[in-house]
Amino acid sequence: MKAVTFQAPGEVRLDDKPEPEVDGPQQAVVRVEATGVCGSDLHIYHGRVKIEPGFTIGHEFVGTVVSAGDGVTTVSEGDRVLGCFCTACGTCFFCRHGWFHKCDSGGVFGHGATMGSIQGAQAEYVLVPTANLTLRRVPEGMHDDVALFAGDVMGTGYHAVTEGGMRPGDTVAVFGLGPVGLCAVQAARAAGAARVIAVDSVEDRLAVAASFGADAVHLEVGDPRGAIKAATDGRGVDLAIDAVGHPAALDSAIRAARKQGAVVAIGVYAEHADVHMGLAFIKSLTVKAGLANVIRHVDPVLELLASGVLDPRPLVTHHMGLGDAAEAYATYDRREALKIVMTP
Amino acid sequence: MKAVTFQAPGEVRLDDKPEPEVDGPQQAVVRVEATGVCGSDLHIYHGRVKIEPGFTIGHEFVGTVVSAGDGVTTVSEGDRVLGCFCTACGTCFFCRHGWFHKCDSGGVFGHGATMGSIQGAQAEYVLVPTANLTLRRVPEGMHDDVALFAGDVMGTGYHAVTEGGMRPGDTVAVFGLGPVGLCAVQAARAAGAARVIAVDSVEDRLAVAASFGADAVHLEVGDPRGAIKAATDGRGVDLAIDAVGHPAALDSAIRAARKQGAVVAIGVYAEHADVHMGLAFIKSLTVKAGLANVIRHVDPVLELLASGVLDPRPLVTHHMGLGDAAEAYATYDRREALKIVMTP
Amino acid sequence: MKAVTFQAPGEVRLDDKPEPEVDGPQQAVVRVEATGVCGSDLHIYHGRVKIEPGFTIGHEFVGTVVSAGDGVTTVSEGDRVLGCFCTACGTCFFCRHGWFHKCDSGGVFGHGATMGSIQGAQAEYVLVPTANLTLRRVPEGMHDDVALFAGDVMGTGYHAVTEGGMRPGDTVAVFGLGPVGLCAVQAARAAGAARVIAVDSVEDRLAVAASFGADAVHLEVGDPRGAIKAATDGRGVDLAIDAVGHPAALDSAIRAARKQGAVVAIGVYAEHADVHMGLAFIKSLTVKAGLANVIRHVDPVLELLASGVLDPRPLVTHHMGLGDAAEAYATYDRREALKIVMTP
Amino acid sequence: MKAVTFQAPGEVRLDDKPEPEVDGPQQAVVRVEATGVCGSDLHIYHGRVKIEPGFTIGHEFVGTVVSAGDGVTTVSEGDRVLGCFCTACGTCFFCRHGWFHKCDSGGVFGHGATMGSIQGAQAEYVLVPTANLTLRRVPEGMHDDVALFAGDVMGTGYHAVTEGGMRPGDTVAVFGLGPVGLCAVQAARAAGAARVIAVDSVEDRLAVAASFGADAVHLEVGDPRGAIKAATDGRGVDLAIDAVGHPAALDSAIRAARKQGAVVAIGVYAEHADVHMGLAFIKSLTVKAGLANVIRHVDPVLELLASGVLDPRPLVTHHMGLGDAAEAYATYDRREALKIVMTP
Repeated sequence: MKAVTFQAPGEVRLDDKPEPEVDGPQQAVVRVEATGVCGSDLHIYHGRVKIEPGFTIGHEFVGTVVSAGDGVTTVSEGDRVLGCFCTACGTCFFCRHGWFHKCDSGGVFGHGATMGSIQGAQAEYVLVPTANLTLRRVPEGMHDDVALFAGDVMGTGYHAVTEGGMRPGDTVAVFGLGPVGLCAVQAARAAGAARVIAVDSVEDRLAVAASFGADAVHLEVGDPRGAIKAATDGRGVDLAIDAVGHPAALDSAIRAARKQGAVVAIGVYAEHADVHMGLAFIKSLTVKAGLANVIRHVDPVLELLASGVLDPRPLVTHHMGLGDAAEAYATYDRREALKIVMTP
Repeated sequence: MKAVTFQAPGEVRLDDKPEPEVDGPQQAVVRVEATGVCGSDLHIYHGRVKIEPGFTIGHEFVGTVVSAGDGVTTVSEGDRVLGCFCTACGTCFFCRHGWFHKCDSGGVFGHGATMGSIQGAQAEYVLVPTANLTLRRVPEGMHDDVALFAGDVMGTGYHAVTEGGMRPGDTVAVFGLGPVGLCAVQAARAAGAARVIAVDSVEDRLAVAASFGADAVHLEVGDPRGAIKAATDGRGVDLAIDAVGHPAALDSAIRAARKQGAVVAIGVYAEHADVHMGLAFIKSLTVKAGLANVIRHVDPVLELLASGVLDPRPLVTHHMGLGDAAEAYATYDRREALKIVMTP
Repeated sequence: MKAVTFQAPGEVRLDDKPEPEVDGPQQAVVRVEATGVCGSDLHIYHGRVKIEPGFTIGHEFVGTVVSAGDGVTTVSEGDRVLGCFCTACGTCFFCRHGWFHKCDSGGVFGHGATMGSIQGAQAEYVLVPTANLTLRRVPEGMHDDVALFAGDVMGTGYHAVTEGGMRPGDTVAVFGLGPVGLCAVQAARAAGAARVIAVDSVEDRLAVAASFGADAVHLEVGDPRGAIKAATDGRGVDLAIDAVGHPAALDSAIRAARKQGAVVAIGVYAEHADVHMGLAFIKSLTVKAGLANVIRHVDPVLELLASGVLDPRPLVTHHMGLGDAAEAYATYDRREALKIVMTP
Repeated sequence: MKAVTFQAPGEVRLDDKPEPEVDGPQQAVVRVEATGVCGSDLHIYHGRVKIEPGFTIGHEFVGTVVSAGDGVTTVSEGDRVLGCFCTACGTCFFCRHGWFHKCDSGGVFGHGATMGSIQGAQAEYVLVPTANLTLRRVPEGMHDDVALFAGDVMGTGYHAVTEGGMRPGDTVAVFGLGPVGLCAVQAARAAGAARVIAVDSVEDRLAVAASFGADAVHLEVGDPRGAIKAATDGRGVDLAIDAVGHPAALDSAIRAARKQGAVVAIGVYAEHADVHMGLAFIKSLTVKAGLANVIRHVDPVLELLASGVLDPRPLVTHHMGLGDAAEAYATYDRREALKIVMTP
């Protein structure tokens, strides 16, 4: 089969690989019909996340189950399904608590040996190690482009909002309007945010945020702090989301939050950071970090997508073939795309 | 001043009464500019809730502060304000926990001696015993008809949804589509319900619910149970709201909820009821009853009203003068109105 | 092997049955070393819960894994384990939410066809259908009598307290001091209840409750309502637990709870009941019913048992052989025992 | 009256000051009968927290109400009361949410102009600006030394545990065993921690922690990380408390917590800190910082103290007169005391 593989920083290519086969009771093989390029794929592309040359990349996919182990009960052969970006055993301490994203034996598709050696989904077929938890049936009539978001980007937006304890009527600030930030904007509005202040420095992204119902504020041209004060009687926001993963965004979020407010960092951190603990202390903040528990969120996110409350289609800027992977990555790297959907 | 008083079951009239005066540091007097007739006023009108003849009734109001005690800090003379339906001391055990609706010395406007002897708001002026907690400034530009809902009916809809632990993506059933039930429909959608099944037997109310985004199902002509099963893969709803206050509605809610689901009874109960505890047990339900904690909810509800996420104006079917109170009550009693707003 | 079977109301006997064998990847066979007689076994003994004659009964067990399917990862052959009273698939909608007790394909050991046709644990061997979730390793050095409680009775006490949202410093009332009620007393104290009022009419049980730190009050001789008022400044308790499963106990719990308090009914209900909804409404109560989610609680309960914070050994009044099952049931039926541990 | 005043770093003295008088409806004057020296007083003593020379210091007190404004309802003249360390209006946005420690007009006793200009409690009399929320009656029979802890140090220990979402059966690590850390140890055990690992480098403090039921581990001589791993199957603790307020303690807490665990920083932070966000991200931690909401916690803490579940008396190492204040501060500064109680 054809599969997009990492070769070296800045270089991906379409390789021929053997089709995967089911080799355990919890596994399934899915014939991929749509697969996305994600911001975290760029970390691999840039070499910041190290993976083995030749490893198949990609972790967003929609397709059809072509075979399944005899322990697979939640989906069947022939089902049209979407996949979550990660796997989970369902039985370890963390899974028993519902923290599937912290599964002791879980991994992430297409991220090489350090994240579980699970070959990626930018391929004609993908082997899913834990089908019961990772896969869900696509609701009748839902477009691939929509379903693709349930297992990663929109699940992450939903995570930021619900983990942050947002309540209907709250005001939310989102720093960084890549696909995850924009999904957080939409999820916040869907969950009843009275106002969302969305901050970035890219005009196109601000425009999408505005179309999602946010007060879009340009990071430099506008006055994010003033906008937040004006929207909140000077108090600060109930929830501030760092959708970038950079200390400057975290600092902005800490400054934006009201006393006793929440800060959720869903942008990826790998290093130490200088954090204004004095401000966090004086304001009694709650700061949460980490990847989204997408397996936990995928059911309600699918309900919201099916009912049209959430609709990520404006984020899909490009449709390309799997054979165009090299160009797709280059395009994404130039920040010319929000979401690229590739079709094998 | 003119004030609407209860005289006998089925009889209210406009009386002359002395204007109230501030007589304590926490008090304020509000000149009433709009006041609503509420379903609970009907309980008084029908004689089911006993109050003293001559007592001023009504508990929904918008107006202007004309005087305030020296302990009043959250509003000032001249402020345009809305009132919550109840009072709260802010310092007792229950208020310290934020359960203002259960204040040890709290009362309800216009409900006579059994609920604190607080003269009602269907009058030219109303004395507010605990202004700091009961009153809020009306946001700039908000219509009286909108603000009026924040202190009672929409606060109750918000309560049903948030107390019920609803999460974005959930499916909610609402039994009973009077103003409270309809506000619950709107609040559920605002809070991210993927689907709301709204059940009543009055076509007009079903139509309003549908316009608020609900799947409206006629209690007898339609098939509520079938609709709920179809919407939830046969599971039942995450949250079922009894907005009637009748054992049949409670029973419907208990049957509608999924295993480990929530039932919130915001319709008023005063008596024993036959409850299917066997079903509640086998499904591990959580059942919550009681009046809304409107003082707690009024801030986010105002935010949602100000931003347009919530909009109760379709519920306002009549505008009348205070002098038309007798006719207003008779109209409401004939179920010809959803919300009547009276202007002094 | 030898197994205790139900024959007819009031009649159980030791039968010879074939040893169970593992026949699926999630299964395990446990050689039973201790098994308890539980209050719910009495429902079967009395014929109130209908099961097939000849069905093996019992659902509390400690023993050693003798064989396991290849999907069993949390325990291994040779491990000394305890069992939860129920099974859970780990992958259905309810299990994914951590509500293992409401698993769509779950069942209860020893309760016949209506609860999943899972042969019971009062036998030399028991087949466990979902070993990963149902079984846990017994911590080093823990006595069988202690471990036996983790999978059922103490888990239920823990459930009542934590589901009820008890916070350190709260006052709790427990109505009914069978083993579950007494475990609720101990769990409440362990979780920081400042006071527990324990109500029953059996002196011995009151004495055990007192030894667990409760204020023990005789239902008729004492004055439960007065004791509750005295302990709470007249407010009522923060959490009231119905550990009986009888409308009179539920009514007592509803009366005992303070405004905005919680009532947890862990005694079994199968029928309609007359419930004072008026009181529940005026006090804004939360009422929760249902079996305990023991699979969820078993880890922290084991931690508390291992550290000695919880110690159910005073509840073990009898040790008997499996061959004495008929006598054990008769003894338990005469209320002469709290917990009978049988050894195969 | 006599009052302990700050003069200069390292210098406090007993001054004569006029007795305070009630000058507002929410105020009360308390005749102080016991007052503590607290770790945060040392910040003033060291000059790190700047206050005006001549300002009366101290914020822990027990005494008798000698006069009260006419808006004071929760206590009366003649009542023996304890005070919380801070004041709260009860009506602002934050107070309405129960976040009394973040009151928009709140202050801290004895901390000078930057924290509300509220003269301190190390004096013969103290003026309490918001008596309803700040004062509580001392339960019958409770010793001054015990009651003194309810309004500050034990309330802070309780805060760390409950804000951290600790559940019965959890394992907790406490870094820093000053009075607050030791109270956190006791509160954690009271709330059902199966194990508490308590870390410090002072032998006496480790001994007190051990007597409170902790596994006491010397920071340098022992192996805190090894102890935590051994106690948690290598997972890390459910809740890690930084009771120091130093980046090294915060780092230890972040390293000690399990995936999806909580870190609560109750030690004071005023500056930026280097935080291992990468670790916080990969482990999906929740980090909470800030002063304790003691007004919220004082009721349950008093219940726990009254019932003997909590008992801080082992922390009281010195009783001195108000006239010995200079010596008291010097003693405390030399770390020769845990809690010094002064009597006017």
